[in-house]
Amino acid sequence: MDPLQIGQSRPRGDAAAKVAGREPYAADAYPDNRLWARAVRPGVPSGRIVGLACDAALAVPGVVKVLRAGDVPGSNRQGIVHKDMPVLADDRVRCCADAVALVLAESPAAAAAGAAAVAVEIEPLPGVYDLDAALAEAAHLVHADRPGNLLARATIRKGDGADPLARCDVVVEGTFTTPVQAHAFLETESGVARLQPDGTLWMQVSTQSPFRDRFEIGHALSIPYDRIHIEAPCLGGGFGGKDGATVQCLLGLAALHADGRPVKMVWDREESFVAGYKRHACRLHYRLGARRDGTLQALHARIWYDTGAYAHLGAEVMELGMEHAAGPYRIPHALIEGWCVHTHNPTAGAMRAFGVCQVSFAFESMMDLLAQRLGMDPLALRTANALVRGDTNCAGIHLETSTGIKACLAQVARHPLWREREIWRRQAPPFKRRGVGLAAVFNAAGYGGGVRDAAIAKIEMDPTGHFIVHNAVSDMGQGNSSAFMQMAGHLLGQTADRLRIRQPDTRTAYPSGSSSAGRTTYTFGRALTFACETLKSRLLNRAGLMLFLQDDDDLVLEPDRVRHIPTDRSVTLAQLGAMMSAEERVCLGQFVAPTCKPVPDTATGFFIGFPHVIFSYSAHLARVEIDTLSGVVQVTNYLAVTDGGHVINPAMFHQQIQGGVAQGIGYALYEDFITHHGRVRTEDFTTYIIPGALDLPEIVSVACVEETEATGPFGMKGIGEVAMNGPLPAIANGVADAGMGRICRAPLTPERVLDNGVRAPATAQLQK
Amino acid sequence: MDPLQIGQSRPRGDAAAKVAGREPYAADAYPDNRLWARAVRPGVPSGRIVGLACDAALAVPGVVKVLRAGDVPGSNRQGIVHKDMPVLADDRVRCCADAVALVLAESPAAAAAGAAAVAVEIEPLPGVYDLDAALAEAAHLVHADRPGNLLARATIRKGDGADPLARCDVVVEGTFTTPVQAHAFLETESGVARLQPDGTLWMQVSTQSPFRDRFEIGHALSIPYDRIHIEAPCLGGGFGGKDGATVQCLLGLAALHADGRPVKMVWDREESFVAGYKRHACRLHYRLGARRDGTLQALHARIWYDTGAYAHLGAEVMELGMEHAAGPYRIPHALIEGWCVHTHNPTAGAMRAFGVCQVSFAFESMMDLLAQRLGMDPLALRTANALVRGDTNCAGIHLETSTGIKACLAQVARHPLWREREIWRRQAPPFKRRGVGLAAVFNAAGYGGGVRDAAIAKIEMDPTGHFIVHNAVSDMGQGNSSAFMQMAGHLLGQTADRLRIRQPDTRTAYPSGSSSAGRTTYTFGRALTFACETLKSRLLNRAGLMLFLQDDDDLVLEPDRVRHIPTDRSVTLAQLGAMMSAEERVCLGQFVAPTCKPVPDTATGFFIGFPHVIFSYSAHLARVEIDTLSGVVQVTNYLAVTDGGHVINPAMFHQQIQGGVAQGIGYALYEDFITHHGRVRTEDFTTYIIPGALDLPEIVSVACVEETEATGPFGMKGIGEVAMNGPLPAIANGVADAGMGRICRAPLTPERVLDNGVRAPATAQLQK
Repeated sequence: MDPLQIGQSRPRGDAAAKVAGREPYAADAYPDNRLWARAVRPGVPSGRIVGLACDAALAVPGVVKVLRAGDVPGSNRQGIVHKDMPVLADDRVRCCADAVALVLAESPAAAAAGAAAVAVEIEPLPGVYDLDAALAEAAHLVHADRPGNLLARATIRKGDGADPLARCDVVVEGTFTTPVQAHAFLETESGVARLQPDGTLWMQVSTQSPFRDRFEIGHALSIPYDRIHIEAPCLGGGFGGKDGATVQCLLGLAALHADGRPVKMVWDREESFVAGYKRHACRLHYRLGARRDGTLQALHARIWYDTGAYAHLGAEVMELGMEHAAGPYRIPHALIEGWCVHTHNPTAGAMRAFGVCQVSFAFESMMDLLAQRLGMDPLALRTANALVRGDTNCAGIHLETSTGIKACLAQVARHPLWREREIWRRQAPPFKRRGVGLAAVFNAAGYGGGVRDAAIAKIEMDPTGHFIVHNAVSDMGQGNSSAFMQMAGHLLGQTADRLRIRQPDTRTAYPSGSSSAGRTTYTFGRALTFACETLKSRLLNRAGLMLFLQDDDDLVLEPDRVRHIPTDRSVTLAQLGAMMSAEERVCLGQFVAPTCKPVPDTATGFFIGFPHVIFSYSAHLARVEIDTLSGVVQVTNYLAVTDGGHVINPAMFHQQIQGGVAQGIGYALYEDFITHHGRVRTEDFTTYIIPGALDLPEIVSVACVEETEATGPFGMKGIGEVAMNGPLPAIANGVADAGMGRICRAPLTPERVLDNGVRAPATAQLQK
Repeated sequence: MDPLQIGQSRPRGDAAAKVAGREPYAADAYPDNRLWARAVRPGVPSGRIVGLACDAALAVPGVVKVLRAGDVPGSNRQGIVHKDMPVLADDRVRCCADAVALVLAESPAAAAAGAAAVAVEIEPLPGVYDLDAALAEAAHLVHADRPGNLLARATIRKGDGADPLARCDVVVEGTFTTPVQAHAFLETESGVARLQPDGTLWMQVSTQSPFRDRFEIGHALSIPYDRIHIEAPCLGGGFGGKDGATVQCLLGLAALHADGRPVKMVWDREESFVAGYKRHACRLHYRLGARRDGTLQALHARIWYDTGAYAHLGAEVMELGMEHAAGPYRIPHALIEGWCVHTHNPTAGAMRAFGVCQVSFAFESMMDLLAQRLGMDPLALRTANALVRGDTNCAGIHLETSTGIKACLAQVARHPLWREREIWRRQAPPFKRRGVGLAAVFNAAGYGGGVRDAAIAKIEMDPTGHFIVHNAVSDMGQGNSSAFMQMAGHLLGQTADRLRIRQPDTRTAYPSGSSSAGRTTYTFGRALTFACETLKSRLLNRAGLMLFLQDDDDLVLEPDRVRHIPTDRSVTLAQLGAMMSAEERVCLGQFVAPTCKPVPDTATGFFIGFPHVIFSYSAHLARVEIDTLSGVVQVTNYLAVTDGGHVINPAMFHQQIQGGVAQGIGYALYEDFITHHGRVRTEDFTTYIIPGALDLPEIVSVACVEETEATGPFGMKGIGEVAMNGPLPAIANGVADAGMGRICRAPLTPERVLDNGVRAPATAQLQK
């Protein structure tokens, strides 16, 4: 067995355990003597609670307690930045997900029966269920204590803003809408909790943010954060939906009232669909102006995000979308306006590529409209305007880090899927049309300005000379654990069997932020490299001591020993492990991600999360074939060329890109989380459709090798999100290229394709 | 109170405690239920033990046990490199210090009475008590199992060796002898030990080498080193005499037989004088050749060291002397021969400037002889030949580190004590003669080639936000503790009251070598700077985390807090201490001193400790006034200009130089440890004379500011030894300058001065 190496394609370290069902998830914990907790969610999107009778519920056999708002000891408010979501609603309900009571019972069945027996009387109130209603004069207020329904309102103004549009040779315009998307992870929200004899609240939970959870729980339930102990085993998917409290505060509340018994909560799919966070639905209005030669000149973008009842990260989602609103292009003048709007819809929050996949759809559609208007090749138009390092992007950020979009586009240009597109298009079978669409996209990595984006990594050698990476950023399935093992193995010269990973535990690992924002491997990984380098130099030093060498030159760390090359003498790691003290066998490394200084003065109304300094880039190509009889769009081939810096593990790199593209294809063609007057109409996978393996084309992923990101571990940067942004615009551009018209409303369902291609005029139009 | 600063003169951190008697020394430990141990030393320098009867001793009230060689469980051999000294002699005694039995008793008095009552019968054997006898054909062998009485025999040959002497314009020649010197520390050898319930041997002992002691004790008594726990409180002086086991193996042996009771051993002054290690007596024969213009051309030096009965560091002492045999000068050709000779005299070992103060006497006398022969100014002769960085010294070492002797000599040249010497000399009162002598000296720092010269430092912040430096290199009184506090305070921005130092403890500190060889502050200090820098960056990082800052820029570590300059927000160190885990509050730093690569091929017969790469340099001036009636030499003024790199604490720098000069003046004028046929004749301070305060002149110390040593912490290098080398040659040169003739035998007692100045011809003579 060879030592792990950076750049080597390797199977995921957790593959065997996961395939065999051995990997323990939070939902797999069945502590003895457990209680089960279940929330009572009346499903009323807007109303006043006028009665809540629990007697019948308490009479259900097996029901132990029914808790209500008055039983919550703290602020009873949760939320990542803005803490506005009640753990249990006190007097008002603001969306169908609001929980009004929490049943503790001896079994899931008893909990469900108890929840059904809680008598809730709610006086309905008026509600606002779409952007226009929420923004209307004298609209009903989702939060009565706020002056309006705007969670946030912000502007980016670069150069002369929108004014130069009037002087552009050409201006194109379009209005786009994007749907609510559900995370649809395999593993629903779940966890177990217990109030320990020492008063500590212990919780094992499916979470992307174990360290931050302590503050959310602590705030809601009035518990000091250092009395909360979170363990985060591997997640069966997260995609942002487990960033921030889901079951945590309810579980904590249950544990406080469980007389020391463990409490378990697992949301079923229906509860997950109702109560889980969602991707923001969006409306976008774009006007884009250029010179006759295709040089982009000015942009005016207006973007409305429906953030639902509670804040979650709504303002940050809007800000990130605005920061990306003009794509990876040079545009000297831009006015980008954003509105983040409360409605009584389910709460929207973090989801992979948050805010950005919406604007990518709009802007990349606009680029094809512009190409069409100018009679230009869409790839040439993109290439001509693509950002390079040293440019200033549309948010006014001077790009000092790797900026690979031009190289990605060049790879697309060289690829047969692009070069041979005409032949392929002409070979469409009867009743089919074929088109090839492009998208050039990017996605910031990291939290952005004003937020601490840092990690503290810990590596340990145990007394037997084996290594433990103490991961502090949850592994949602994206494979960061495997990347960390590969980094540690590479730096320490170790084989896979000598390395273990311990998943996040707030008692033994260190605050390193959430597993999100394309930051996980980048930020924690960089901290880990420092920890490993310290440990390596310490091990060589101690071996030099044991071998009584005059210095540590010519010592090498090998899988089971430190060897002195000139003499071939060695000390085994077991000997070193036995000799070294516990404090000596642990090394910490810390890293604070680079921040943008000075902050450009382009943005107003922004809270935190702006600007970013690291971006990943991707050029996507979709070949689509449309059945003109049914309107079904089939993606027959997909190419994603990605600048993610230096690649740690090519196989996993491509897998993550393929996963992102797959989720993006779902967003483009199938996924549409529908509510009607605030009530969920897509309650499960029978109506909320995600693509299966047979719905997906072969997804070719190519790494752009021209760029490495100097600030990242081994030159890498995060690619968890960027792939999500390409499919919707690339497919929409492909559908248009097939002559089916421009569709500006996602997903591109057969009905919309037929409506559009056959009779509807495109919403987007050419101005001037 | 201001934070500590490097370069600031500050009182020693331990001054108040020491003056008030609060500083606990090893001899201050009086554990409950203690036994006292006392060695039985018959005082016979060479003989065979034919009888050892303990009955009478055991009958003494209070005597508990009498142990003999058969009670020693291990090898019964101690020694730093060569393990040849019995803990308790088995059949042979080889010097008057040999212990044949160990008495354990309830009181010191009972132990003494018991020791006196042990009946030892020793058959005398022939003995060798001087170099010639020991080296004679068919000499009696000190160690019957060796082929002769040479512990070591080595040669340095540079260029054409001694051959070019024949072609030199001038050659001077001299033979010199130097005395045995005792360390004469305030605190004699002492300690307490106990066999702990878990089988660990615990010892609190006055030692310069707590970590290495474990190996000496373990070897002698067959105990694994990791079952030996040593604590080393502050020493009341060491000077090399506590480098290597003194009481350790005896105490350990006693503890093994004490049924778990603590055992205490304190050598009284007489035992310390008999059994303690000594400075090697030396005979040196030098021939030095130069061009007519004073350019040094060739040297032939032959040096014999009387190493006594056991090896200790005899070979290493000889090697270090040979490495310095030609002073800090450029000499293209040299042959340096060394003999390290066993006799039945008390064992010679490590002592401040070991090996070097002997050759400094010889070579600097030769330089004055040469100046006299050439009619040159002795300062000009030295300056013209002085080494500079980039030169190759007489051992063939290419000097790549700071080399400040020329700058030191220049400072002497500018000093009034030199410039106004003629006037002063002429103003000698009646019956007095005055002279001014110079010496240019150097001393290697660190262990030298082949030996690991490394340290591992540990700094800790306690949960209240105060700092603990875990010293691993004993503080003998030289003040390294204070230097470490100053370094930590400087790097961490802390005031003295927020820092504590914990003296070496093998359980909580890390192996960092001995407190010796001018390496203590340099090597451990450098490791400590790394540890402090890590801790500082960790504290800033954690404060940034608590303050939710986007990065750690603009954070400063202040005495009680970390402060964010732009906002003036801060986190107290107490808050950080409470928040951080134990493993997080500890930082280790490691340093391996630079080694010389490639090793020049000049040396043969060397074991370890050659070559060195760091040297400190010093130019000394002594004004002496000789009473022509009594022969008494009075040093009236003394100047020491020292290149010790950048100065950490000027006050302590000068104090250490002054201490070295004082000890050197003792060596030059008073100290003469006399044995006759292997028996000690200077049994205490009534006959072994050390200078008191009134015997010493004002000693002016000047730091040469031209040089900083890039490899050292804050640019410093060790000065613990170099000052010892100047006084004897400077004073001898002063006496000659006063017209009292050249004295080649130290110390320069009144009898020798009178003998020499009045009627004896100088041993040194001018050849050619």
